[in-house]
Amino acid sequence: MKRPKANRRRFLALGAGLAGLSACKKEVPSEIGEGVRPYGERSPYERAARDVRESKTPGTSSTRTPLQDLDGMITPSSLHFERHHAGVPDLDRSKHEILLHGLVEQPMVFTMDDLRRFPSVSRIYFVECSGNSGAEWIHPLEDPQKASGMVSCSEWTGVPLSSLLKVARLKPEAKWIVAEGADACLMARSIPLDKALDDTLVALAQNGEPLRPEQGYPVRLVVPGWEGNINIKWLHRLHVVDQPSMTRDETSHYTDSMPGGKARIFTFDMEAKSIITRPAGGQKLAGGPGTYEITGLAWSGHGKIERVEISTDEGKTWAAAELQTPVLSKAATRFRMAWKWTGQATSIQSRSIDETGYKQPSRDELVAARGTRSQYHYNGIKVWYIKEDGSVSHV
Amino acid sequence: MKRPKANRRRFLALGAGLAGLSACKKEVPSEIGEGVRPYGERSPYERAARDVRESKTPGTSSTRTPLQDLDGMITPSSLHFERHHAGVPDLDRSKHEILLHGLVEQPMVFTMDDLRRFPSVSRIYFVECSGNSGAEWIHPLEDPQKASGMVSCSEWTGVPLSSLLKVARLKPEAKWIVAEGADACLMARSIPLDKALDDTLVALAQNGEPLRPEQGYPVRLVVPGWEGNINIKWLHRLHVVDQPSMTRDETSHYTDSMPGGKARIFTFDMEAKSIITRPAGGQKLAGGPGTYEITGLAWSGHGKIERVEISTDEGKTWAAAELQTPVLSKAATRFRMAWKWTGQATSIQSRSIDETGYKQPSRDELVAARGTRSQYHYNGIKVWYIKEDGSVSHV
Repeated sequence: MKRPKANRRRFLALGAGLAGLSACKKEVPSEIGEGVRPYGERSPYERAARDVRESKTPGTSSTRTPLQDLDGMITPSSLHFERHHAGVPDLDRSKHEILLHGLVEQPMVFTMDDLRRFPSVSRIYFVECSGNSGAEWIHPLEDPQKASGMVSCSEWTGVPLSSLLKVARLKPEAKWIVAEGADACLMARSIPLDKALDDTLVALAQNGEPLRPEQGYPVRLVVPGWEGNINIKWLHRLHVVDQPSMTRDETSHYTDSMPGGKARIFTFDMEAKSIITRPAGGQKLAGGPGTYEITGLAWSGHGKIERVEISTDEGKTWAAAELQTPVLSKAATRFRMAWKWTGQATSIQSRSIDETGYKQPSRDELVAARGTRSQYHYNGIKVWYIKEDGSVSHV
Repeated sequence: MKRPKANRRRFLALGAGLAGLSACKKEVPSEIGEGVRPYGERSPYERAARDVRESKTPGTSSTRTPLQDLDGMITPSSLHFERHHAGVPDLDRSKHEILLHGLVEQPMVFTMDDLRRFPSVSRIYFVECSGNSGAEWIHPLEDPQKASGMVSCSEWTGVPLSSLLKVARLKPEAKWIVAEGADACLMARSIPLDKALDDTLVALAQNGEPLRPEQGYPVRLVVPGWEGNINIKWLHRLHVVDQPSMTRDETSHYTDSMPGGKARIFTFDMEAKSIITRPAGGQKLAGGPGTYEITGLAWSGHGKIERVEISTDEGKTWAAAELQTPVLSKAATRFRMAWKWTGQATSIQSRSIDETGYKQPSRDELVAARGTRSQYHYNGIKVWYIKEDGSVSHV
């Protein structure tokens, strides 16, 4: 199709004399297209992918969600970040069971079909690895995927953990629940009873269909707003106890080293955070000066995002972004702002405020409070730098 | 793992003397599992699939979403129903354009990158084929997929059509917009300007990632609450006109034959409807008498679902089901009810009421108003029959 040369208008306008319709006809495929399929796949022209971080230890690799390629709040299940401690076990739904025992009047075993008979709940929640953005304690990372790609958001369906505990009847001395996965390392975490009885789900499905293998098929915990590793995947045991079990995965790691040598432990909550995903590091404002959409994601383990503020002038002034409704508790929230770029070099950044009033800190504020040796729970403001040629980078 | 025999308790309880933990250890894989992957796939143990309806005419086949296998409100993109009129064209995002012309001051051509510069919107909407449940005008169908599987629900992201029209500047005589697809049949429908300026989206993404090929990649219309075929896929032309174009696809079909020989035309709205997806035809209450969850989906093209009522006693009494929040306008709404089955033969059914007060009709009420020759827009109450052995069927 012949097109007029780009002019100073915002988008390409057709010359008045051009017969658009007849010109356009050239584009149309003249042959019948592909047929229907039982289970669809994406277009071969699309190649967004999780980036793979191999590890020296077999089975402990991870991948990151390509946030810069995504829209809305739902992460496609095929692109949900991964973090495994002994690889993805091969589990057959029809043979898998959960043992519930310890400080209960009646120990129980639940098959997956048993779980299906309980009243279920569907909720959209984010899951974020406590190690997300961990390298940013030391130096800024270069694009949204590398900087913050260990957060994803899905519609989870499952049975409230409280329903299972009710059937087993807790003893008065019950205070914690140790959840254990059926991976080869028996990944386990201790969960306070209050949280277990609140909004914790024994989840069977993700974005409408059964959990993906790498997300814990056939059953996992979803512990809304809490660090990813406590959302135990491939759940096969719930042990009700009177004190935390001090498992390997809550002592040898998943504790945060503070300045002075002390460590924070049981730092469950993922605090408010946000990141601009477009324009962002690795991208370019290819059209030159003009109007662009700034968009990104915000989330908080403490509830709903109340407000996201954006600065496009190196932090001097801040303006409220539009939040995509519905804004849901402990879910990713898409934010947006139309922005007119003048063509000058600048930096852009976002900060989120949640319904508790907590405001996402700058990197300096965060480091002043926690030093640089935490590894975990980095939620500093992410800054992107724009050059005069429109290229965007992390420095 | 050795398990005690089923007893009269709701679920399997472990005998008091059984050392659950040691027994359970047998289940754990002792080897490191599979590694990470750039783009995930579902478990090989899961086989839910769209059922394929081949057609005598090449390229006009369809598939139905397996509603009975799904949870929540989001339909996995791989299982979204299909209905094509000339197959799925092979379109390259980097070469695709939309022509906007006719009664506008400034005809325009938009590349996909151009569209990305407009402020976007993400919304969860259902899309339903007007022919969904069409055979039920004549006889009841046997399972949720066959009976009502041409409805799916996704998070769509795109640019409001009103934004493109604003740039092109409508002439005063503009009243309708003919949207045309780039499939080989040039599938086209006329859309009243009011709807085009209201909530119609030029959609680029579905459930976080780019549209699937069979859903219109790289760009489609989403016309919320209106019959599926007007949500033009593979959109390549928007022609602004002063009257409906009476295209093939709004005259030769997609009109509804009424009793007496008249036809309804431009029957855009999909009215309130619901279906119980579990327990439902083809399934069995395998555990015998006891408590089961009744769950299903409700939706309305007129806005939010206000209420879903369930009868488990052959329509004699009705009780309100729980609606999963958030209840969103023109989106699928998951409903649920815990139900104690006594073991007697009965029938179960659901009816939805939307925020306009419209109540889903019984089949008899619907047929009394519209006869049985409509083919399209069937939204009668769906009844499932349960036998004493727990088997569920459509008759």
